[in-house]
Amino acid sequence: MNGLFEDELVKRGNLVYSYIRSDRYHERFFPDDIHDSVYLYLNGRQGKSLRPAVLLFSCGAVGGDEEIALPAAAAIEIFHTWTLVHDDVIDRDCKRRGGYTVHEEFRRRAIDLGYAEDDAVHYGTSIAILAGDVQQGWSVSLLSELAERGVDSGVVLHLIREMETGVVLTLLSGQTLDVQYSRYPIESLDEHKILGMLWKKTGALYEFAGKSGAMIGLDTKDEENELVHSVSQFTGRCGIAFQLQDDILGAVGDVQKLGKPVGSDIREGKRTLIVYHAFKNADEAQKRYLSGMLGKEGASDEEVFEVVDLLRELGSIEYASALARRYVKEAEEHIADIPESMYKDLLLMWAEYMVRREL
Amino acid sequence: MNGLFEDELVKRGNLVYSYIRSDRYHERFFPDDIHDSVYLYLNGRQGKSLRPAVLLFSCGAVGGDEEIALPAAAAIEIFHTWTLVHDDVIDRDCKRRGGYTVHEEFRRRAIDLGYAEDDAVHYGTSIAILAGDVQQGWSVSLLSELAERGVDSGVVLHLIREMETGVVLTLLSGQTLDVQYSRYPIESLDEHKILGMLWKKTGALYEFAGKSGAMIGLDTKDEENELVHSVSQFTGRCGIAFQLQDDILGAVGDVQKLGKPVGSDIREGKRTLIVYHAFKNADEAQKRYLSGMLGKEGASDEEVFEVVDLLRELGSIEYASALARRYVKEAEEHIADIPESMYKDLLLMWAEYMVRREL
Repeated sequence: MNGLFEDELVKRGNLVYSYIRSDRYHERFFPDDIHDSVYLYLNGRQGKSLRPAVLLFSCGAVGGDEEIALPAAAAIEIFHTWTLVHDDVIDRDCKRRGGYTVHEEFRRRAIDLGYAEDDAVHYGTSIAILAGDVQQGWSVSLLSELAERGVDSGVVLHLIREMETGVVLTLLSGQTLDVQYSRYPIESLDEHKILGMLWKKTGALYEFAGKSGAMIGLDTKDEENELVHSVSQFTGRCGIAFQLQDDILGAVGDVQKLGKPVGSDIREGKRTLIVYHAFKNADEAQKRYLSGMLGKEGASDEEVFEVVDLLRELGSIEYASALARRYVKEAEEHIADIPESMYKDLLLMWAEYMVRREL
Repeated sequence: MNGLFEDELVKRGNLVYSYIRSDRYHERFFPDDIHDSVYLYLNGRQGKSLRPAVLLFSCGAVGGDEEIALPAAAAIEIFHTWTLVHDDVIDRDCKRRGGYTVHEEFRRRAIDLGYAEDDAVHYGTSIAILAGDVQQGWSVSLLSELAERGVDSGVVLHLIREMETGVVLTLLSGQTLDVQYSRYPIESLDEHKILGMLWKKTGALYEFAGKSGAMIGLDTKDEENELVHSVSQFTGRCGIAFQLQDDILGAVGDVQKLGKPVGSDIREGKRTLIVYHAFKNADEAQKRYLSGMLGKEGASDEEVFEVVDLLRELGSIEYASALARRYVKEAEEHIADIPESMYKDLLLMWAEYMVRREL
């Protein structure tokens, strides 16, 4: 069955990416550096399409035609992409999906053109800012294309507004808190704050994926609609589980599969739930050790592995994993009462995939 | 009459800014640094409101009620604001409207919090990226609020798509070309290329101001409508005149009035039309001198004044000024045949103001 589910996922990913590639705005990105930067994460390095897939499944699960929701699925993927492009600058990450991040790619191109290092860094950052801006606009336009497939214009406007204020704001608040928390003493945080940050930076967009899929399927903008509520609670909770799994893979995942360096969370001093749990359960000597290692930019791979061993030893990886599974279980309860269908099954398999995935 | 016109401009500015301040999303910006950065250019340092004002005048000039267009006027002002926030990062400008730019303000705050210089610069840039992103989303939501004032949802969707793809892309292409051209040898450029870049980075948004005002006033999304065409050609051409005047003020304007350092275009080596004209008309010795000075980051104020004197001597300031006036004249011809009204008079006075302004 797992093999089957992954086929369904790939099928949606291909549908969404071919919609994106055939979008009428495709040819208009200019000059070349803007074009290349906008497509850097889209051509040959496409994502797992977990957000667009669940948007389509959600549409189907409430009785809608997923074909109609395709522009929204494309929109949420491009939305996710622009947040990655800008977040990579903010997190100073150089790798993404096995290749360079946008700002790093264009820093390198500028070096090749003879720029001084400082100017090249600035050029890379500038191009990444512009690329994300273009993609943010593009995602809105993609969402607006729903109206051409018969979705009520009022519903489309409602979704655009929700995405461009509620979701943008929540997601960027989450990213800001993530950056700010890294500078706070771990003991000043608590599990509630950390989970709140995770919900903002990841859960909110997943909640929107479910909500918009359901609203499109029902052609309604009624926030009180029971199906809309159930499905969006389901996807939102799975989103938190996804982020917990992401933090786990960031510590103990397979570098080859992930396409990005493992241990960057540790070197950046990210306040993940894993780290918080470890700190709370560490003895004084371990606390001093952890405080010294978390955020140590120049830590060697061996030092990072030593930290990961301690996280494991303190049961912190297992703790995060169990919590992720609990979120998925709670999510599943939210859709227990929706009508049985192939799409409901897909939603349930998708939820399991969120915590089972290794990349 | 001039005094009167400026009253009309201030009146629109106040209307637009009070709409912005009372917008329902006002309270939702969180955490504090996001809130403060989003409002930095909006509270106490509001702009001249030339774009929202002409949007409202355009709506009135085609027989519409400017009150209905207010959300669009607010939207275009916030749209303009996010492009400034990101462009200030890209241009490494530290001052805007008499205060610090967003990235500079938050670099300073980070220094006060004890950040190392490098980290503080990165924090300032990160906050500016996020602030612009929030504002871009906010501008879309503001535009969507037109539907609550009775504008047809299809028209609203059309405007959203136009703003978020056509305008975003054209404007950011213009900014990218501006950055790229600064690194090209001046002799590789020509007047056509420079004017094309000006149109992209400034004209396109002005064209959209006129077009959206007219479309709202007529409640139509018909791109072929004659009134829509006339008004948008008018505002677009005035936008180029505005940018030419901006370049003139950047060279010979009053530092106090402008609230930003004069000469930054020269230090950055910006390929303005003024500079191109000077280079084309310079003798060999002057060319060598100009090549050395344009883009000389550490140039003293005296050196900058010397360059400006040469630009004047070669007639380049006067050349740009005459061209700006020609664009305004051409613009005026585009609306010669629209019905006479108070709003048509306001459009004509606005056009004169675009090239007459000293800040």
